[in-house]
Amino acid sequence: MLRIALDRDARVPLYRQIIDQVAAQVRAGQLSAGFRLPPVRQLAMQYGLTRLTVHSAYAELAARGLVDAHVGRGTFVSASALDQPDGRIAGEAPGIGPGVLAELLRMRERPGLLSFAQAAPPPASFPREELGAALQAAIADAEALSYGPIQGDAGLRSELVSVLAERGVRRPPEEILVTGGAQQGIDLAVRALVPPGGTILVEEPTYSGVLELAAQSGRRLAGVAGDAAGIRPDLLEAACRATEPRLLYLVPTFGNPTGMSLAPDRRRAILRLARTHRFYILEDDVYGRLAYDGVSPALAAEDSAGRVIYLTSFSKMLAPALRLGAIAASPGVLAMLAGAKQSSDLVSSSLLQRALALYLRAGHLQGHLERVCTLYRERRDAMLAALARELPECSVARPAGGLNLWLRLPPGVSERSVAADAIDAGVGVAQGRYFFPQPQPSGFLRLSYSLHEPEQIDAGIDLLAGVIRRHEGTLARARQVAAPLV
Amino acid sequence: MLRIALDRDARVPLYRQIIDQVAAQVRAGQLSAGFRLPPVRQLAMQYGLTRLTVHSAYAELAARGLVDAHVGRGTFVSASALDQPDGRIAGEAPGIGPGVLAELLRMRERPGLLSFAQAAPPPASFPREELGAALQAAIADAEALSYGPIQGDAGLRSELVSVLAERGVRRPPEEILVTGGAQQGIDLAVRALVPPGGTILVEEPTYSGVLELAAQSGRRLAGVAGDAAGIRPDLLEAACRATEPRLLYLVPTFGNPTGMSLAPDRRRAILRLARTHRFYILEDDVYGRLAYDGVSPALAAEDSAGRVIYLTSFSKMLAPALRLGAIAASPGVLAMLAGAKQSSDLVSSSLLQRALALYLRAGHLQGHLERVCTLYRERRDAMLAALARELPECSVARPAGGLNLWLRLPPGVSERSVAADAIDAGVGVAQGRYFFPQPQPSGFLRLSYSLHEPEQIDAGIDLLAGVIRRHEGTLARARQVAAPLV
Repeated sequence: MLRIALDRDARVPLYRQIIDQVAAQVRAGQLSAGFRLPPVRQLAMQYGLTRLTVHSAYAELAARGLVDAHVGRGTFVSASALDQPDGRIAGEAPGIGPGVLAELLRMRERPGLLSFAQAAPPPASFPREELGAALQAAIADAEALSYGPIQGDAGLRSELVSVLAERGVRRPPEEILVTGGAQQGIDLAVRALVPPGGTILVEEPTYSGVLELAAQSGRRLAGVAGDAAGIRPDLLEAACRATEPRLLYLVPTFGNPTGMSLAPDRRRAILRLARTHRFYILEDDVYGRLAYDGVSPALAAEDSAGRVIYLTSFSKMLAPALRLGAIAASPGVLAMLAGAKQSSDLVSSSLLQRALALYLRAGHLQGHLERVCTLYRERRDAMLAALARELPECSVARPAGGLNLWLRLPPGVSERSVAADAIDAGVGVAQGRYFFPQPQPSGFLRLSYSLHEPEQIDAGIDLLAGVIRRHEGTLARARQVAAPLV
Repeated sequence: MLRIALDRDARVPLYRQIIDQVAAQVRAGQLSAGFRLPPVRQLAMQYGLTRLTVHSAYAELAARGLVDAHVGRGTFVSASALDQPDGRIAGEAPGIGPGVLAELLRMRERPGLLSFAQAAPPPASFPREELGAALQAAIADAEALSYGPIQGDAGLRSELVSVLAERGVRRPPEEILVTGGAQQGIDLAVRALVPPGGTILVEEPTYSGVLELAAQSGRRLAGVAGDAAGIRPDLLEAACRATEPRLLYLVPTFGNPTGMSLAPDRRRAILRLARTHRFYILEDDVYGRLAYDGVSPALAAEDSAGRVIYLTSFSKMLAPALRLGAIAASPGVLAMLAGAKQSSDLVSSSLLQRALALYLRAGHLQGHLERVCTLYRERRDAMLAALARELPECSVARPAGGLNLWLRLPPGVSERSVAADAIDAGVGVAQGRYFFPQPQPSGFLRLSYSLHEPEQIDAGIDLLAGVIRRHEGTLARARQVAAPLV
């Protein structure tokens, strides 16, 4: 029997409480496959809810594959409800619907799947020998296992000075804060600089992690459209007038998801707007060093007014499990970020910080980046060639770096259906709508080409093209059927 | 010349903006030693501030040693303003005044200081050989350097089942979330369960990290007094009626800072209140396995209503630089916590998680805990003996585990002055007021006995006793001088 305990004072909406509890009871085996959920009307009456609330919960449960809805018969726990891998629970986080990052990470774990869904370095690229040696050297000092300074290991911050200088960012070690990857850097900036209810501006489309974070932490989001040259300054100015933003989140170099970079003249215009409207720009530069056809310096390199907070991470350029990134900002802002770091998780691992410092001091990074950029260039070219061959009707731009392609689907083809069918066919892709503040069909897919070798990329694009063509065929038949009725 | 740019829309109070900017300019060398700050009245008029605002800023700058105030002459940048170590900036985080955790970590780095200020395991205790071997074994699998599941490595979560069972907490791996230490666990619970403006209840006194976090994140705090048997249920009930709390943060076993544990009958009363008033209890059990005179099971072990969120960490029992802890909670709550984890820093390091899993699987933890508990028992006894000998006038209770003693100072002796003079004498202590929601003189010091050997503890208590006796002497003389005037 279905029992639900609703907390009307909770921050979690009622429909989501229903979802969570049904899901938990299915997982716990308290509701087994074939169990019929109470009709919407009955559950609504029983708990004093609107029918819309119950309907929303059932619809989301169906979308997750936990229940099947049969018109006229009712809603039943799905026979495949327990096929979810263990990590599934993470995808059920409240705040925003799809739990997109969780979905990507989960897909990645699905054995045999060709994943174009996650922008991550391939395990074969990790410099395990050098990092292993650096770890052994670091652990020889017992202090490496202690707490360290909140701002980050002094030795690592010294090394970071030159890492940042490669992107034109000149900051002394005292103006650098070590973070737990770029995601934590974004979180710290939001915590320190945007009050609850305050507005964060983002380019449309943008990195999904910032969208989930804003939704969960009670900050407002306003999207500003971009084009091939990046975010549009005229629309940004209008958004500034409308919203009084505290922070503009940008990926100016090899943007996520589009792979495109912000044009030089727009950079100057945007810096001017930041000064005039007194907001900070959080520059997420995680892809900046993954350049294979040339690159501009970071936006922060042009900032003379202390308005740009520069953020980078070693997750894309080296190895995600280091969980290390860095923020550079003016002293006043950095002090606020350090305060947020302290409340978030106190410090990042001294051991990993010292190992990374040793790795950098040994001069390993440059060679590693050259190796992986060669690899990624090859993979980008393989994917572009396969797309041109198999899907000439889908337009795609050629990124000069980073890990992502942004593919426009043929008109009318549903990204959601394509993504779902692609998984069944053995290929993971990221739906474009995940990268917009208001998730709605975008007509795009994000394809990351980093994880697989050119032959696998060929095979994966073949499979994806097959799926897209089937959808085009269905659409064409539907149009033919519909035509005589007009 | 002093230039200040105030942002009246910022979340940071104006007086703190002044502090941050003066501090930044001193550090940057723009204001040098001996520079005279504008008089309070002048700065207030110039920027349209109240004199109280400017006065508060100057007072805090003086308290930090950045400026010296000379009555009748003015306020000057201190000659020793630049003597602050590099990590200093972290202590200047806004939100709450003293930046206590930062201060503790900084003190810890001061060479030669006998530190009783930080509750941390001594570097000599770290099982470097076993952890080093586990790291090498983990890195042999390239996947260990990838992202992993948000909820945490499945292998580690399996091992955590038995770690939690040792404290009477029975949860399957699916109901466990890996966190970046206990501090992140607290942050996740606050993010997921307490809306901005919502109330967190804490015992008075309590762990200072939760106080800073609440202040920074815009949650309200309400303190509930405790006594030798822990938090008082009658006062807790009154606080529930007054504040409608979402969360009660507790350290029921070997509490921080007092070292005392919550009595069994109070545990039942508090669980009843959580059910009645429908709040969650966040049980911080970081000291639970550091028991050397017997221990009760965790509070979560008695919870049948899913009201207790159990939190532990390997920072105190093994090594802080692992930055790994765990939360166990009912599935619905865990899903919310996982969502918060994802937005905070995505995942904890797979490499460190897998290494810890290997260390636990090899059965190393139990032996390690026996060794460190022997060590800590000896150190506790050494400190209690030295205190009884040198400071019989100061009362102190005998903790059965954990790392902390709570020392009551003689009446009238200022903890702030004692703490400052103790550092000059070569001993770091934590002022009691840091552990209260409203920082005001508490008449207590927290003394952590974990970092030093018995002989050093003896020497440190001798030095501290000298400082306290000097303050008692000054007080006695002041009373003698004052007496004839009455």
